[in-house]
Amino acid sequence: MNITITGGSGFLGKKLAERLLAANELVGEDGASSAVENLTLLDVVDPPEELKNDPRVTVLTGDITDRALLEKAIPQSTDSIFHMAAIVSAGAEEDFDLGMSVNLDATRNILEICRGNRTKPKVVFASSCAGFGGDMPRIIEDMTARTPQTSYGTQKVIGELLINDYSRKGFIDGRALRFPTVVVRPGKPNKAASTFASSIIREPLQGQTALCPVAPESKMFLASPRSIVQNIVHAHNLTANEWGFSRETTLPGFTMSIGDMAEALRVVAGNDVANLIQWEPDPFIQEIVNGWPPEFDTRKAKDLGFIQDTSMEAVIRDFIDDEL
Amino acid sequence: MNITITGGSGFLGKKLAERLLAANELVGEDGASSAVENLTLLDVVDPPEELKNDPRVTVLTGDITDRALLEKAIPQSTDSIFHMAAIVSAGAEEDFDLGMSVNLDATRNILEICRGNRTKPKVVFASSCAGFGGDMPRIIEDMTARTPQTSYGTQKVIGELLINDYSRKGFIDGRALRFPTVVVRPGKPNKAASTFASSIIREPLQGQTALCPVAPESKMFLASPRSIVQNIVHAHNLTANEWGFSRETTLPGFTMSIGDMAEALRVVAGNDVANLIQWEPDPFIQEIVNGWPPEFDTRKAKDLGFIQDTSMEAVIRDFIDDEL
Repeated sequence: MNITITGGSGFLGKKLAERLLAANELVGEDGASSAVENLTLLDVVDPPEELKNDPRVTVLTGDITDRALLEKAIPQSTDSIFHMAAIVSAGAEEDFDLGMSVNLDATRNILEICRGNRTKPKVVFASSCAGFGGDMPRIIEDMTARTPQTSYGTQKVIGELLINDYSRKGFIDGRALRFPTVVVRPGKPNKAASTFASSIIREPLQGQTALCPVAPESKMFLASPRSIVQNIVHAHNLTANEWGFSRETTLPGFTMSIGDMAEALRVVAGNDVANLIQWEPDPFIQEIVNGWPPEFDTRKAKDLGFIQDTSMEAVIRDFIDDEL
Repeated sequence: MNITITGGSGFLGKKLAERLLAANELVGEDGASSAVENLTLLDVVDPPEELKNDPRVTVLTGDITDRALLEKAIPQSTDSIFHMAAIVSAGAEEDFDLGMSVNLDATRNILEICRGNRTKPKVVFASSCAGFGGDMPRIIEDMTARTPQTSYGTQKVIGELLINDYSRKGFIDGRALRFPTVVVRPGKPNKAASTFASSIIREPLQGQTALCPVAPESKMFLASPRSIVQNIVHAHNLTANEWGFSRETTLPGFTMSIGDMAEALRVVAGNDVANLIQWEPDPFIQEIVNGWPPEFDTRKAKDLGFIQDTSMEAVIRDFIDDEL
């Protein structure tokens, strides 16, 4: 299998690359598992040394809006593409043109390059629950309209539509996955409004205080990096027929109040750690979080065999194992 | 008011132009009605003489994919744009690149030109119920997911998403309207699978036989040219606030079986006319029509004051008045 990951040095791209290389197999167009022959990682920054040093890995560093670079990243022999690169929500909101260029135009270029190839590559597209927004029903279902209230969400929904139409036309074999909010992210806080959901676990576990800007009763729809990466591979390996008339799904997640997240941290790491969370309400962040739909019925994903995290405690323990 | 209609020589664009010129008023950004100073009609073919001869009309003939021409059609002084030009369903299915270029890229160019203008133009975008498809619920509601099963439908839904996001960002003041199947279209049958819905009324009224390729119990969601044109103007004249979090709606229509349409023709024009309909089932067309969702609950549009046709008999009488 010749595989390309865009955003291959990103937090999830890197984990996906590690998983594919370790498993050394992926289900091809013919329905059979094959070994990973070449894994191309495209990103603006280099991946870590251990990935670079794997003889199966090709590193391409540069801007995804550069069509020539994309063509190099997706040669005729490409079997599978995991398109993870994106300008995230705050970034696409701040710089509209950059968001359109990376999240929409580059996605379209990838699909066009695939369409021109002899093979019909599988394309797994990382989308987001930011595709939902505004006056939503209490529970978001598979057939709830996507009415995004950010440019990022808009660009992601457009990507889903293109994945569907290019698949229907037989240009690609696509799959689009709407990710829940990912906890626990490693590293530093980013500019996303949801960043506190990881901070309140990650920082206390490392002996640092973390500010929580929302009330304990605020709810979010969450999934762990482990379950998301496993679900990305599962999405790839399903047959086209199993997807049915629509090549998209919301990934399973769990709905939890921030207070219960803090309680899970207390159970796993004790009072001293959990007490490092400082509750400092920020009306601006609170209002944004209040606008996110917390409850999802992901029936399609569950019918298709996608997995869901078992508990917040398990998510925290996995984070400790994987990152600390 | 300086107004531009793309697709201004098309069937609905022409009717809209006539209506705007006759009324000689449109509600501007300030909420007040103003006279029509300039009406630019952009299309690949010239509009009829009576439109060309109106001193308020500027005719621009050419390809909407030509950005320079679009810039000419949307000068800095533009208050309102009615974007009606499109490659229709069968056309966009046959020539994917042409559909993407006209239905997606040209729409985006229009929005970008507006964004660059000093004014914040109102943009009314003609979308379509072809945005719905696949395994749908029995009744399509405002918050039912758009899962189009054609490239035309895909491109129209993307247009709706862009109209929403450009409006949210304050670049334009947009509105997107999903049209039901329009009956009765004047002229000749076109390549749309729905073309028989007009033919079975239009041809018999002119003494010609018409083939009906679907069973009498097949149902469609319909609206007349008169109600659609009135609703286009209404959509324009509503304030931005009235639209709320989403700048889109399905226009009201009526659901009717093909048999009941034929019966309405019998009531209006008599047995001899209605008997000119010949029922010749075509499994290919029947299957396409079976895939269209016939039942819509257009609550949002009704709450916003959009009108609905009163009866098929009235629609047929209006067609006779307007076209024969």
